[in-house]
Amino acid sequence: MTPRGKSRTAEQFFGEEIGRLRRTRGFSQEELGFQAGIHRTYVSQIERGIKSPTLVVILKLAQALGRPASQLIAEVEKQLKK
Amino acid sequence: MTPRGKSRTAEQFFGEEIGRLRRTRGFSQEELGFQAGIHRTYVSQIERGIKSPTLVVILKLAQALGRPASQLIAEVEKQLKK
Repeated sequence: MTPRGKSRTAEQFFGEEIGRLRRTRGFSQEELGFQAGIHRTYVSQIERGIKSPTLVVILKLAQALGRPASQLIAEVEKQLKK
Repeated sequence: MTPRGKSRTAEQFFGEEIGRLRRTRGFSQEELGFQAGIHRTYVSQIERGIKSPTLVVILKLAQALGRPASQLIAEVEKQLKK
């Protein structure tokens, strides 16, 4: 279970957004990892919010998901302000 | 000297943007590091594009510079597309 509201971290919000977009596209974590050129265990860690992705990984994931990275970050900032 | 155009990396574009905004605000690297809560040597490495900043560091730098992180990333994406 994930705690609600302000206690959640930027990594958790980012991970949730990645997982949400991945499922929308019908990708497994392995498929997303393949598309983005990053290991599936790293995808899993990012989705669980236990790794802070680097700029390069953020850009790769965004490209694989067909979204601008700036939009993913805007979503994280929106969630952090709630 | 920095090579022009496509040969530059996302880290370099990000670093240049951070340096530009930092100077606009009249901060030294040390002052920006203090405001963002990251070490000045890490600020220096980021500005030179030799470190890929994590999501958390991107958010901290953006906050210290008074800009949305999404705007910094949008600038990097714009530069990468040129």
